[in-house]
Amino acid sequence: MTEKLNIVPFVSVHHMMELVLDIGVERFLSELTEYVEDDFRRWEQFDKTPRVASHSHEGVIELMPTSDGKHYGFKYVNGHPKNTREGRQTVTAFGVLADVSNGYPLLISEMTILTALRTAATSALAAKYLAPRGANCMALIGNGAQAEFQAMAFKGLLGVNKLRLYDIDPSATEKCRRNLEGLGFEIVSCTTAQDAVEGAHIVTTVTADKQYATILTDNMVGPGIHINGVGGDCPGKTELHRDILMRSDIFVEYPPQTRIEGEIQQLDANHPVEELWRVITGKAEGRRDAGQITLFDSVGFATEDFSALRYVHDKIVGTSHFAELDLLADPDEPRDLFGMLLRFPGSSLLAQKKHSA
Amino acid sequence: MTEKLNIVPFVSVHHMMELVLDIGVERFLSELTEYVEDDFRRWEQFDKTPRVASHSHEGVIELMPTSDGKHYGFKYVNGHPKNTREGRQTVTAFGVLADVSNGYPLLISEMTILTALRTAATSALAAKYLAPRGANCMALIGNGAQAEFQAMAFKGLLGVNKLRLYDIDPSATEKCRRNLEGLGFEIVSCTTAQDAVEGAHIVTTVTADKQYATILTDNMVGPGIHINGVGGDCPGKTELHRDILMRSDIFVEYPPQTRIEGEIQQLDANHPVEELWRVITGKAEGRRDAGQITLFDSVGFATEDFSALRYVHDKIVGTSHFAELDLLADPDEPRDLFGMLLRFPGSSLLAQKKHSA
Repeated sequence: MTEKLNIVPFVSVHHMMELVLDIGVERFLSELTEYVEDDFRRWEQFDKTPRVASHSHEGVIELMPTSDGKHYGFKYVNGHPKNTREGRQTVTAFGVLADVSNGYPLLISEMTILTALRTAATSALAAKYLAPRGANCMALIGNGAQAEFQAMAFKGLLGVNKLRLYDIDPSATEKCRRNLEGLGFEIVSCTTAQDAVEGAHIVTTVTADKQYATILTDNMVGPGIHINGVGGDCPGKTELHRDILMRSDIFVEYPPQTRIEGEIQQLDANHPVEELWRVITGKAEGRRDAGQITLFDSVGFATEDFSALRYVHDKIVGTSHFAELDLLADPDEPRDLFGMLLRFPGSSLLAQKKHSA
Repeated sequence: MTEKLNIVPFVSVHHMMELVLDIGVERFLSELTEYVEDDFRRWEQFDKTPRVASHSHEGVIELMPTSDGKHYGFKYVNGHPKNTREGRQTVTAFGVLADVSNGYPLLISEMTILTALRTAATSALAAKYLAPRGANCMALIGNGAQAEFQAMAFKGLLGVNKLRLYDIDPSATEKCRRNLEGLGFEIVSCTTAQDAVEGAHIVTTVTADKQYATILTDNMVGPGIHINGVGGDCPGKTELHRDILMRSDIFVEYPPQTRIEGEIQQLDANHPVEELWRVITGKAEGRRDAGQITLFDSVGFATEDFSALRYVHDKIVGTSHFAELDLLADPDEPRDLFGMLLRFPGSSLLAQKKHSA
């Protein structure tokens, strides 16, 4: 992209919107899903670690690093449910992709929008292996910032064209319906979660409260359903009643992280779960039969952000959808960092030296 | 600094040089030392964790997070000794300061220059408590990118005005001498490390090889010396012979990290060390007598980067030494992230909706 060693390409929020709209939301999601799937296929190549979380009373700030030995990526992401009351996002994020061979960053990108996209892409990818055949009706419970992205990804990858929306706040449902209408969905707004799951083949829960909640109770989940549990993603935050988990075959991204953060924090530490990468690579079975309840207990894993950063890094080549940040000191002689300061135009240091000479 | 919720102030390399030179290198180092000392004084308030390192054959990429409950900071830093052969820096870094209450970043800053400054400030701070009284002569072994910053900090805080330089590469020594002459030092270039330590009250080792090295042997270290060991800072990388450690009182930043990365990785895991913050707060003794050998086994800790980011964040207020990055998505309604895309000027999504209407 550039041979200027001081420069790191930066994709701002504005650039990301340009990029997504230039590519098209559906194509972006479907190409991104391929990157996510490719990286799950080579899961064993990745250096994996649970996210590094700093919890406070109001929320959490996390770093999510990973590496495949060639590239290194990490995401900074916060989660502060009270933020929306102050006009801020619950979740904001940015990320960095770097070159392992020299440690230099290759890309800094906004990831608030990109996280919503990669989460949706991962959800749809899991559903491709786990949802019942021909599933085209999805209940979408929680109609906040991520809801529409989930809908678009499921439409693109699985052909979901019937949505049943529910949120405790009817204005969120109305916002979601308004945004999605005209984009190829038949949409029903529901007044209870019970109503929303009626006739749905897939149930996506993507609510935002930072607490143990029971968005779905056991009686609401019939046989054959695929549950895409997105909102329960940190310690103390769950969405599903424990009895649902006991009836489901549970699929996760990275067990050491999901045991702490996912729905399965409600279960014994040795409760059997299957890893998504094993299903994708054919090492394990996904959906076995039409009556089975499958649950993708999604918490979001670093490799997905890595895939998203890799995708954006590839797609901005030759476009104007990035700026150049002067981030890395690049002295004429690598060991002469101090000399850069000394020779800076108008340097007060140089003046001091001349004065003494 | 700004009420625009999408904006994060960004201090580039250019801005950092402007800022340092506007303030003046010596004043910058002395004010920065105060911030570092203040944060060591309230050590117990910090959420501390060893850095999160991703090692490869060629080097390491690390994330160093910490928080005092009000602010959160982290640094991204690489260490690739071979980089200088390709015209790149061995160590580059950038950092982020964020608001714990809402998780929003407050500052993104270059930290290649800033790390050299904070490392020097921390070294000088430790020496203030550990070096022999009246110490004014320092051996500086390793004359690479960090050497001059160490010299300037020791001059400012301790009055060191005699330098004895040595590097295995004489051109590095010559570069260092040339940069520092006229800045208030009496400088002697030496041809061996043995020669350099002759008559020095303080010995600073700041070499860059990623391997077990023996920059100082036991016979070179006389009584009363303070050793400022800066270069041994990752697993497998040390500078001092083990026998020196056995004769020294050893002071460290954060034992769980230093045991892995510092000179003391050569010693038993229970070898007694003292924590710098305990010396600074008067809970432990620093230098006891004139004959004692003290060693500051410095590896660099996250709180020091936190202090540096805090300092820069305070100092850029009212200046032009930063740019505004459009980093955080800020939809009109926080839950309407998708709506931002939909309503983006020329949105392909909106066209799709209109077409279907």
